[in-house]
Amino acid sequence: MTNRPHDVESVDCKKAGQVLARVGEKWSVFIIMSLAEKPHRFTELKRALNGISQRMLTLCLRGLERDGLIQRTVIAVMPPHVEYALTPLGISLTKPIIALGQWAFEHIPDIDAARAAFEARENGEKT
Amino acid sequence: MTNRPHDVESVDCKKAGQVLARVGEKWSVFIIMSLAEKPHRFTELKRALNGISQRMLTLCLRGLERDGLIQRTVIAVMPPHVEYALTPLGISLTKPIIALGQWAFEHIPDIDAARAAFEARENGEKT
Repeated sequence: MTNRPHDVESVDCKKAGQVLARVGEKWSVFIIMSLAEKPHRFTELKRALNGISQRMLTLCLRGLERDGLIQRTVIAVMPPHVEYALTPLGISLTKPIIALGQWAFEHIPDIDAARAAFEARENGEKT
Repeated sequence: MTNRPHDVESVDCKKAGQVLARVGEKWSVFIIMSLAEKPHRFTELKRALNGISQRMLTLCLRGLERDGLIQRTVIAVMPPHVEYALTPLGISLTKPIIALGQWAFEHIPDIDAARAAFEARENGEKT
């Protein structure tokens, strides 16, 4: 492995980029955070992620399952239902994800202030 | 602030989603990682991020500057040049970003194996 993770010619770097893209998708982050509490059924997740569409939730769950971060289990009761839970790999991702999420929440005021200052400078330059 | 960061109706949650989107953009992550080493000129960054286009680098730098994560300084020598460096806010983001980047690099083999197993299951189901 290279010590220069921004040496973006490397295959590893391209793959890390794909992983980051998944993590940067806010719904994926919110799904991982929900499942870090407890396993959820599809309808429970939909309720927890107030505002997500059925289609987007299905797509995100499929992407997370494909990457081995969550496990989909069909529970054979009547009527049968499907439960989603984090895999050990998904659990290992919760720590950095939560750290990043906390940073994002804590620094919203700073980013808002920076954006306002940036717009003001831009407008100042134009006039 | 809510204790349920996935309560996505909240304004904070939408804004955190925007922050995550920036962080999920691989070039932004690689720029932050490069600037964590030392300030860079535009051409130095372009060289470090082998493969990034001029246009994409300009866009990313502008986004990071707008969010208050990097600072653009015009150095008044002849010929004048522009230097990019992390702000204190940007520096505070390096710790969770690097943790996440490390997770991504370390778990590439696990994710590759999960994807291969997923495709195999999908193909098995179809035949």
